[in-house]
Amino acid sequence: MSSQVTRAEYGAAALDLNITKDLCAFLAVLSFEDLPEAAVHAGRRGVLDWLGCALAGSRHPTITKLLSVLEEVGGPARATVLGRQTKLGLLDAPIANGQMGHVLDFDDTHLGGVVLHASSPILSALFALSERNAVTGRDLLTAYAAGFEAGVRAGQGAPAHHAGGWHLTGTLGSIAAGAAAGQLLGLNSQQMVHALGIAATQAAGMQQNRGTMCKSFHAGKAASSGVLAALLAQKGFDSSDEILEGKRGFCRIYSSIAKTELILDQLGERWEITRNGHKPYACGVVLHPTIDAMIALAARAPAADQVATIELRVNPLAVSITGVADPKTGLKSKFSLTHTAAVAFLDRAAGIAQYTDERARHPDVAALRDRVGVQTDESLGKDQAWAAVAMRNGDRYEHQVVHASGTVDNPMSDAAIEAKFLANAMPVIGQERASRIRDVVWHLDQFGDIRGLLDLCA
Amino acid sequence: MSSQVTRAEYGAAALDLNITKDLCAFLAVLSFEDLPEAAVHAGRRGVLDWLGCALAGSRHPTITKLLSVLEEVGGPARATVLGRQTKLGLLDAPIANGQMGHVLDFDDTHLGGVVLHASSPILSALFALSERNAVTGRDLLTAYAAGFEAGVRAGQGAPAHHAGGWHLTGTLGSIAAGAAAGQLLGLNSQQMVHALGIAATQAAGMQQNRGTMCKSFHAGKAASSGVLAALLAQKGFDSSDEILEGKRGFCRIYSSIAKTELILDQLGERWEITRNGHKPYACGVVLHPTIDAMIALAARAPAADQVATIELRVNPLAVSITGVADPKTGLKSKFSLTHTAAVAFLDRAAGIAQYTDERARHPDVAALRDRVGVQTDESLGKDQAWAAVAMRNGDRYEHQVVHASGTVDNPMSDAAIEAKFLANAMPVIGQERASRIRDVVWHLDQFGDIRGLLDLCA
Repeated sequence: MSSQVTRAEYGAAALDLNITKDLCAFLAVLSFEDLPEAAVHAGRRGVLDWLGCALAGSRHPTITKLLSVLEEVGGPARATVLGRQTKLGLLDAPIANGQMGHVLDFDDTHLGGVVLHASSPILSALFALSERNAVTGRDLLTAYAAGFEAGVRAGQGAPAHHAGGWHLTGTLGSIAAGAAAGQLLGLNSQQMVHALGIAATQAAGMQQNRGTMCKSFHAGKAASSGVLAALLAQKGFDSSDEILEGKRGFCRIYSSIAKTELILDQLGERWEITRNGHKPYACGVVLHPTIDAMIALAARAPAADQVATIELRVNPLAVSITGVADPKTGLKSKFSLTHTAAVAFLDRAAGIAQYTDERARHPDVAALRDRVGVQTDESLGKDQAWAAVAMRNGDRYEHQVVHASGTVDNPMSDAAIEAKFLANAMPVIGQERASRIRDVVWHLDQFGDIRGLLDLCA
Repeated sequence: MSSQVTRAEYGAAALDLNITKDLCAFLAVLSFEDLPEAAVHAGRRGVLDWLGCALAGSRHPTITKLLSVLEEVGGPARATVLGRQTKLGLLDAPIANGQMGHVLDFDDTHLGGVVLHASSPILSALFALSERNAVTGRDLLTAYAAGFEAGVRAGQGAPAHHAGGWHLTGTLGSIAAGAAAGQLLGLNSQQMVHALGIAATQAAGMQQNRGTMCKSFHAGKAASSGVLAALLAQKGFDSSDEILEGKRGFCRIYSSIAKTELILDQLGERWEITRNGHKPYACGVVLHPTIDAMIALAARAPAADQVATIELRVNPLAVSITGVADPKTGLKSKFSLTHTAAVAFLDRAAGIAQYTDERARHPDVAALRDRVGVQTDESLGKDQAWAAVAMRNGDRYEHQVVHASGTVDNPMSDAAIEAKFLANAMPVIGQERASRIRDVVWHLDQFGDIRGLLDLCA
């Protein structure tokens, strides 16, 4: 059994040359003037919403554990840790900020073919670099949009990536953060190719760790890996030129299906940041249509102690992602469809308070979630759900959700995002500073130096 | 299309419960007294060989680029950077040392079902932690062996991992470094489970980056991720308890085939560190049988300018890993079968000097490699090769290699490892210090404080 070998070279697959190079050429020359107003405004909404999520998350016990290590081993304290009155090194603050941005599962979610919480990795990387050299609001918004393009499009080129068990906020987040950081540093086209190559080759995060402290750690590590990638690329550190499309590159080894031709589709015409979703609820996004339904039903049905059963019909992804039946911790309860249905019905809310350790273990919640039955229904979209509550006296209430709150087809209004930000930020930094941040961010493209914004968030 | 959902919980696959827990219970209580002398001696050989590779690698231009970033952003300078007269932070020195250990592709290789350069990630992690608290030679050797068990066994549970395009020194290296670091820190069994979970969820490195600076960066990042994982686990940071065997865990998402039952096979009986290989040549291990053959043929055949053709028959992996036909850089030439055959025939050697940018571009080498023809032969093992040189006058010389030098079945002698160490280390740190290191490491289990060893390597 022997066969003659023709000359082989590592690198590009035969049919899809130059995809990484073309994407990076686009990203490297991107300027604020290229962005349509819709992308700029999506950026303002994204920054405001994410800052609130990170500030609210800054008080989570997970962050205290993380900081106890990073404060010992981290680099020179030059980058603000949000809400914590401390600074860390340029590679360490992104870990902390990325983790606090994602720990409540309250941060924005891109559903355009991928399930990516892009802002936690991207903004954590960009804010750290914004304290190294002066960065304007326009610079930040441009790099932020660039990060979305890189991360989301890499995911579109790897369509079986999520089904393969990866946590995309770790994997695509690393690529997104690397591209955003490279854009902010003003890397040239070849350096940007290397930044993407170095960032992607650090991409990691397993869904196995959902419901643990590692899930939000993925976001922080992605941010840090992206910063390191861009700094190294700037110094001439190299990588493959075909990290996305290569034979052993991202789309082929992180996904059983590669559609690399999608990566450049409508580049410069469709702006992925405009398809970002913002969460009204502090849990996995596939739970949101169910929450809408349960809150609507709670307003109509009598008290919970008269409920016989709750029936849900959901998209199959809601079960595969949020199938935890009996969560013992707040973090695990964010991935429990039954907990969510029960607590949303009881509390008529699904905010931070509904996903604490205490609430996950509360007997009333546990009793009601035992009465929840779930059916998957492939005809329902990821933003759709149907729910029914049957009472002991035979009464029955039903509700159908066509597009969950906070999704692209039913977006949170600017006012709702502002209210969410204030509710998240005020308990941590007070009303005055929260109000000033709000004012800055709604006019971020007029703002001269991001350090002024970070000082308000410290 | 709807279906009733039974209660689902994240985590273990039904049939393979507790594999990670059982492995970690073993690792957490491992003590020096548990190690057979063969494992201890493999540890001594591994430390000596690796220190030489890292010292030789410390002068590589890639390291200078890396250090220029790490020196700016790294943590408090408490951990020695080998051969560089500088220190870096506890998370940063492992990146530098891991990269320099692997950059020449001269470091040890485990071929027991996986292709893992285990020492670069493991020892880089352990040396950094050895400057935080006093660590004895026995502590180090025990943790070193623990790292091999975790990394190699995780790979055995994921047998399609390498074929999937992953660079195992990045992925398995992260797991190995996390386990070794956790063992050195004295983590208890549950903390060790978390250290493995946190380390594995950072596991990354794509084969796409072979021949670039990223390849050895994978080793460094793996080391750093392992240190961070162990430090976090010590503080109560958690993870999945089933990171290896879980439904969305390592063996299933990093490999299209999972054989989780192999992870615990003969645990405590078979010591993976005893199956480690040491390289006589500074390039990918699958090239080594070809090098043995070419050096043997060069001793018999007349001068290279009379060569008509060189014919090679190799295991298919040698082509899939080292198929670069026309390398332009020294790093790429380490993955070129044709460069290797040509340069080994011309120089009767395959050391550091044969894989420089200059040698890769030399016209004599380029001319001869154009005359190399390659056939794959599935009947040949990874450590086997056949080569023939046909001269212009019709003469013909053939050579068959049954087990390449430096593999388990044809190991480098202790004397050869010592000579390799001295050749690598002396140009960097001088003869006196190199000799002292040699004396220390051959009696490492008698040595009281690893900091004394690191001072010699600075």
